[in-house]
Amino acid sequence: MKINTNYLRLKNSYLFSIIGKKVNDYMLQYPEKDIIRLGIGDVTLPLVPAVLNAMHTAVSEMGNAETFRGYGEEQGYVFLRQAVCSYYAKKDVMLDINEVFISDGAKSDLGNILDIFDTDNTVIIPDPVYPVYVDTNIMDGRKIIFINGNVENKFLPLPDGSLAGDIVYICSPNNPTGAVYTKEQLKLWVDWALNRQAVILFDSAYEAFIQDPELPTSIYQIPGARNCAIEFCSLSKTAGFTGVRCGYTIVPHELERNNTLLNKLWLRRQTTKFNGVSYIVQRGAEAVFSEMGLKQIRDNIDYYLDNARIIADTLTELGIWFTGGRNSPYIWLECPNHMSSWEFFDFLLHNFSIVGTPGVGFGKNGEGFFRLTAFGIKENIIKAMERISKIKF
Amino acid sequence: MKINTNYLRLKNSYLFSIIGKKVNDYMLQYPEKDIIRLGIGDVTLPLVPAVLNAMHTAVSEMGNAETFRGYGEEQGYVFLRQAVCSYYAKKDVMLDINEVFISDGAKSDLGNILDIFDTDNTVIIPDPVYPVYVDTNIMDGRKIIFINGNVENKFLPLPDGSLAGDIVYICSPNNPTGAVYTKEQLKLWVDWALNRQAVILFDSAYEAFIQDPELPTSIYQIPGARNCAIEFCSLSKTAGFTGVRCGYTIVPHELERNNTLLNKLWLRRQTTKFNGVSYIVQRGAEAVFSEMGLKQIRDNIDYYLDNARIIADTLTELGIWFTGGRNSPYIWLECPNHMSSWEFFDFLLHNFSIVGTPGVGFGKNGEGFFRLTAFGIKENIIKAMERISKIKF
Repeated sequence: MKINTNYLRLKNSYLFSIIGKKVNDYMLQYPEKDIIRLGIGDVTLPLVPAVLNAMHTAVSEMGNAETFRGYGEEQGYVFLRQAVCSYYAKKDVMLDINEVFISDGAKSDLGNILDIFDTDNTVIIPDPVYPVYVDTNIMDGRKIIFINGNVENKFLPLPDGSLAGDIVYICSPNNPTGAVYTKEQLKLWVDWALNRQAVILFDSAYEAFIQDPELPTSIYQIPGARNCAIEFCSLSKTAGFTGVRCGYTIVPHELERNNTLLNKLWLRRQTTKFNGVSYIVQRGAEAVFSEMGLKQIRDNIDYYLDNARIIADTLTELGIWFTGGRNSPYIWLECPNHMSSWEFFDFLLHNFSIVGTPGVGFGKNGEGFFRLTAFGIKENIIKAMERISKIKF
Repeated sequence: MKINTNYLRLKNSYLFSIIGKKVNDYMLQYPEKDIIRLGIGDVTLPLVPAVLNAMHTAVSEMGNAETFRGYGEEQGYVFLRQAVCSYYAKKDVMLDINEVFISDGAKSDLGNILDIFDTDNTVIIPDPVYPVYVDTNIMDGRKIIFINGNVENKFLPLPDGSLAGDIVYICSPNNPTGAVYTKEQLKLWVDWALNRQAVILFDSAYEAFIQDPELPTSIYQIPGARNCAIEFCSLSKTAGFTGVRCGYTIVPHELERNNTLLNKLWLRRQTTKFNGVSYIVQRGAEAVFSEMGLKQIRDNIDYYLDNARIIADTLTELGIWFTGGRNSPYIWLECPNHMSSWEFFDFLLHNFSIVGTPGVGFGKNGEGFFRLTAFGIKENIIKAMERISKIKF
C-alpha cells in the first residue's frame, strides 16, 4: 500500500492561524479596543427573499410523496441549467444546456476538473494566487510554472511568445488582487491557448461585481474561447451562497484535445464520482436567476461595491497604490513606506485596530502588498476608513 | 496538452438505457398493460417531519443577518459530526468528531478517497459490484483484481492466503446482492488487511436495514478495523436523502500507512478540493439522528423491509434461490430454468409486466442472476408477487 506521496510536498498555510493568534494576543492586551475585520473573505448579508421562498417550497415538496424528488441528474436539473443559459444569454453568450454542469461550488470543480487531464502536463499559475490552484496540482504531481503579477502589469500578467504550458489558470475579477482583464487582454490569452492547444481554466466567481460594460464577465465573450476554455462560476459571492453551496462549470462542445471532447470526459467524471447537488439548493439557485432574484441580489452586490468604493476613495486620498476596489469586492494595496506585508498587518492592527490579510500569504509576489475586502458591514468599513484617513503615512 | 487517457479505457454501461428501451417498446406494443417496476434503486417515501422541520428552520435562519451562516468547516459542522458520533456510540463504536467527515454522499467520497492513494496500488473488487468502484480506479489507471461472488460463497467472497492487493472494497449489506457479512467473516477481511498493511474501503450505505442484532452494522465493530479500514455511509437510503445529498466518511486516527496518518491526508484533500455541505442539508441530517428522527426513519425502513420480506417469501415458495431480502432492501435471485439475466428480464416483462435489473449488468458473475428492490410502493409489490406466484417455473 502506497499513499499518494505528492501530498507530502504540500506546504501548510499558517496564514489565517497566524492572523488569528496576532488578533487574539492584541485583544488580550487591549480588551477595550474595537477591532474591525477587513480581511473577511465571506459574505455577511443574508439570502434574498426570492431564494428563501424557493427553498422553503422545495423543502415542503420533499415532504410529500407526489412531489418528492430522489436522485436527480448528476450534472444538475434541467430547470437550473436552463436558468444558467438564460443568464449567459444576457451576456450575449449562447450555451447549450449540456454544456452546463451544476456543482456544489467552484472550489470543488476547480480541483476535480484536473481528473480529466494527464498528470504529465505543465500548468501555468499567476502569483499572487488563490492557493487552491497550486495545491490541487501539487497533489497530482504536475509541473507548475508561475507567472508574475506586479505593479508593472497591474497584477494582470499576459503571455509572451516564449511562454510554454498546457493548462493556465485565469481568475478575473481576481482573488486576491481585484484586478480585471479587459477583452483585449483576455484575447491575448485565448490566442495563446489556441496556438498551443492549451486549455484555460477561467475562474469567474466574481463576475457579478463587474459594473463597467466594457469589461468581460465571461471568457466566452472572447472569440475563440469556446475552443480553449472551461469556465467556473459560483453563487457564493453572487448571491451569498457560501454556506448554501452551488456553482456551475461550462465545458463547450467545441473543446477537443487528443481527438476527445472534454465535455464528454467531464460528464463521465461527474456521473461516476458525483451525485448532483441537493434539490433544495438547486431550487434556491434557480430563484437567483429569476427576474425578482436578480433584482434582489443586485442590491446586495451594490452594497458590497459601495463598501469597496469607500475603501478605494480613502486609499486614493492617501496616495496609496492599489488594484481592485471597482468591479470587484477586493482591494489589493501596496503597503506604504515600503513596509512588508506582515509589518503593515501589525501597523494596521496596533494603530487602528484593523485586521486585513498580508499579501505574501498569496505567493511571493504578494510580499509588500495587502488585501482588504468589501464583504463587511458598511458602518464598520466607514469607521475603519475614518481611522486610517487621519494618519499621514 | 494531454488528456487523462485512462478515461478512454472506461466501458460505457448501457444497462439502464437498454432496460428503458425494452420497457418503452413493450408499452407501445401493449399500452393497456400495468407495468410494475421492481428495478428502482431510488427511495419513494418522502422525507420525515423531523427533517423537514429542521430544514425549514435552517432556511429561515439563512434569511436573517443574525443567524445567517457563510462558509462552514469543510469537514462538516460540529453539531452534525457529534450527531454521527452519538449514532455510532449506540453501535458500541466510539468515534472522535475529527474522525468524521461530512460529505454530499457516499458516491462522491468513495471516488474522491482514491486521491490519497498512489496509482501504483493493486485494488481488489468483488464481482458482482456497484460499478463506481471499478470505474473510479480505471480512471486512475490502477490494477484491478476481481474476486468472485457466487452461489457457493453466497456472494460473500472471503480472502485466502494467496490473495494479494493493497486496497479492497467491501459493501455490506451488499448492492446488488443484498448479502450481509457476519462478524466472523469481516474479521477474516480485517486480519487479512492487517497482515498485508492493506486498506479496506467499507461501504455501509445500507447498514440501517440490518435487523439481526448479530450482524455488524459498522466495520469498527470488528477488532483491529481502526487500523485498516475507512467506512463510508450515506443518508440516501437511511433517511430518503437521495435528492438531499448527505453522507459521511470515517477515517480513524490509528490508520497509518507509509508513516502517514490517512486522516490527515483526507482532511487535506477535503479542505483543498471541497467546501463543505449546505448548512440547510446538514441541519436536516442532524435531525435524522435525533430521537424523533430515528423513530420516524425507522418506520420508513420497516416499510421497505416489509416489501423485501414479501418478495422473499414469494421466491421461497417458488423454490427460487436468492440472497438478501432480509437485513437489506435488495433481493438477488438465481434466474429459474437456467435463463440468462436478459432472458429472465424479457420473461418477467412479457409474462407479468414486471421490470427488474439483469444481474449481468453488475459484472460477469451476475450472469444468470437478477436484482429486485424493495423501494417501491407496497401495493405494487404485493400485486407483482401475486402475478409471479401464479406461474410455475
